[in-house]
Amino acid sequence: MTNAHDTTSNSKPPADGAVHGAALDWPRLFATRAGRMGASEIRELLKLLDQPDVISFAGGIPDPALFPADAFAAALTGALSGDDQGAALQYSVSEGYRPLRDWLVTRMASLGIDCEADNILITSGSQQALDYLGKLLLSPGDTALVGWPTYLGALQAFNAYEPRYDRLTPLGNRTPQDYRETALTNGGAVKFAYTSADFANPTGETLPESARKKVLDLAEELDIAVIEDAAYQSLRYDGDEVPPLLALDIARNGSIGATRTIYCGSFSKTLAPGLRVGWVCAAKPVITKLVLMKQAADLHSATLNQMAIHRVASDGFEAQLGRIRTTYRARRDAMLASLERHMPEGVRWTRPDGGMFIWVTLPEHLDGAALLAESLETERVAFVPGKAFFADGSGHNTIRLSFSRADEETIEEGIARLGRVVGGG
Amino acid sequence: MTNAHDTTSNSKPPADGAVHGAALDWPRLFATRAGRMGASEIRELLKLLDQPDVISFAGGIPDPALFPADAFAAALTGALSGDDQGAALQYSVSEGYRPLRDWLVTRMASLGIDCEADNILITSGSQQALDYLGKLLLSPGDTALVGWPTYLGALQAFNAYEPRYDRLTPLGNRTPQDYRETALTNGGAVKFAYTSADFANPTGETLPESARKKVLDLAEELDIAVIEDAAYQSLRYDGDEVPPLLALDIARNGSIGATRTIYCGSFSKTLAPGLRVGWVCAAKPVITKLVLMKQAADLHSATLNQMAIHRVASDGFEAQLGRIRTTYRARRDAMLASLERHMPEGVRWTRPDGGMFIWVTLPEHLDGAALLAESLETERVAFVPGKAFFADGSGHNTIRLSFSRADEETIEEGIARLGRVVGGG
Repeated sequence: MTNAHDTTSNSKPPADGAVHGAALDWPRLFATRAGRMGASEIRELLKLLDQPDVISFAGGIPDPALFPADAFAAALTGALSGDDQGAALQYSVSEGYRPLRDWLVTRMASLGIDCEADNILITSGSQQALDYLGKLLLSPGDTALVGWPTYLGALQAFNAYEPRYDRLTPLGNRTPQDYRETALTNGGAVKFAYTSADFANPTGETLPESARKKVLDLAEELDIAVIEDAAYQSLRYDGDEVPPLLALDIARNGSIGATRTIYCGSFSKTLAPGLRVGWVCAAKPVITKLVLMKQAADLHSATLNQMAIHRVASDGFEAQLGRIRTTYRARRDAMLASLERHMPEGVRWTRPDGGMFIWVTLPEHLDGAALLAESLETERVAFVPGKAFFADGSGHNTIRLSFSRADEETIEEGIARLGRVVGGG
Repeated sequence: MTNAHDTTSNSKPPADGAVHGAALDWPRLFATRAGRMGASEIRELLKLLDQPDVISFAGGIPDPALFPADAFAAALTGALSGDDQGAALQYSVSEGYRPLRDWLVTRMASLGIDCEADNILITSGSQQALDYLGKLLLSPGDTALVGWPTYLGALQAFNAYEPRYDRLTPLGNRTPQDYRETALTNGGAVKFAYTSADFANPTGETLPESARKKVLDLAEELDIAVIEDAAYQSLRYDGDEVPPLLALDIARNGSIGATRTIYCGSFSKTLAPGLRVGWVCAAKPVITKLVLMKQAADLHSATLNQMAIHRVASDGFEAQLGRIRTTYRARRDAMLASLERHMPEGVRWTRPDGGMFIWVTLPEHLDGAALLAESLETERVAFVPGKAFFADGSGHNTIRLSFSRADEETIEEGIARLGRVVGGG
């Protein structure tokens, strides 16, 4: 009987507690979409962060020393006393906490985005916004336009809705007709272009205004949506701000009601990721549908967290931005200087104006994943191989370095180690 | 030019700020699943709760006076000081906070469910668990077995994955072959049976052990999963506990690894809903896939919230259960007594051993929705029409009453008012 699945017996298990049922054939019960949910390299790598002798440039993770922990403690204590007490722990509306949405209306206005509270949905981080937008827009076989490379988490979020990917090349030579026909041939339609325009994960690069306009041009010609992932937008260390695509879309079409750009913001990189608070800003028909979707999917984001974020943001968002920009700017500068010192000939890298990442292109004969294995063994330094960020499986000779978690001294030591690995590779 | 969508012009908007772009045809871009996302009656009704002269028996919402707000304030302050400070605001693993999962292992053991931390995923409320399970198991056209009536939020969560529903009648006369063939005829397969076995929303009823075993029998014969929604399980006011389906499944098959039951728990009804913390307990192949899904969908539930729940639950979960049971038991008794006093002939209702709801069946000629409209206008008392809980659109003459939010005096007054409406209807 052991390990035999007996569907008719109602007998008690053997007294020794031995397993007498076999495991189910779960994959038979899973939806087709489950086939596209795999473990990510980033996830496995996050586990390495806890090993004390590894210098990690892997995770795109804020430095916890920069979290306004005291402000959060005060905000939470405040929300749990006085008038807010009951509401802070209670169910709340799916749209999100109204004072936070009102604060965001003002914040968006400062970015050139004129909107109302009804244009804003609070999400559990911008990752949830990407999941919901995939869910809202993608039927199986539809096409999503993404960069080569692009944010791995966006691909993971969209994968659940079984799209195909095509390459978003706003400055390239593809015609709208070509995109449209390729999508049709593959059994779907082009639904959106996804882009992280500021200090993108993984490259750290920023789209200039001219390129943003070309993305909007292409989206208009294809009559598709644009998903603007603005997770890193507030982390600018040099140069002038470039208007968000949503601001350019509003300038072009007169009001947010006539735009096609869906802006996804996050407090994860500015205040704290552990509270899971982000937002979507878009035309009302999109928000209305997303609110229904959120109600069905998790009712609402945690009430107390939204109240805490609102209090902390209202009291000192700009001051907090100033603090983190100063720290991260110095780390970026340190990493760029260390790369100059330690990288051998034939290695190229981006010089980002903000964000958390530098993108390194190695000589063609090197493989990022093999280099990581070697690097962890010989020099104890971690990074993310770039291949996972490419929807087409290319990019074997690229790696992503994050400068957000390590101080300047550690960055110099870690890049020196990495230089030895690359030089010996 | 006003209201004309001009896809070639890059001109600035008119100085008066008039809209010159038309709204997009968003439904054309939406996925087919979006067609099944509609506004819910419960959602609209929740808005009525804020009107001070309405006595509401509508929302299934805990009494905020019962939230352990001081314990949460202490737990949050504790998590934001000392060793946990950085971690409390930082990204964390998708599985959930390990000490909370370990606490849940002990809690599940007390319910007859022998499991390990790897059998548990922390979710943002059990609503998110239902969404994820729909996503994991349902391809479009697949069949989900649900009660007539069943939890409306489960239907809303599953709807996004475009299933059809068939009626779960564990004590009925449908054969497995009949279920299977009907599913096939409709272009899919039966994937799971969903049931809330304890003090179900909306009926308040509890499945006896014999009926639970019949659900497992049917699931075994169909070789499908069982989703056990245990959101109200801890709210028992009378009688002995009935083993969860997962405990019966383990007893039958020897270990959780050989079970087909996926248990969804929640802290929303016991500690506080506003923190959005629930859990799934199931065989590891299910948890492994759900962890990947959660990583792609929102990375993880809020770290701080999991820490706070862990501290508050560790310090006094049973004491909190004692408090809320005493209060809700008295309210249930008051509502049952008031119904006896005020309901006219021909009205029937359930007598739940726990939970938050009493389910009322009105005479055939009455319609719950029409009665609500009348009730709000004439007597200012709110409830939920029962029809929304039926996947087949039946149940016009049923209504759901919640006794969780009102004190005994208000319950007597509200049911007296309701009796007048029903009697005049």
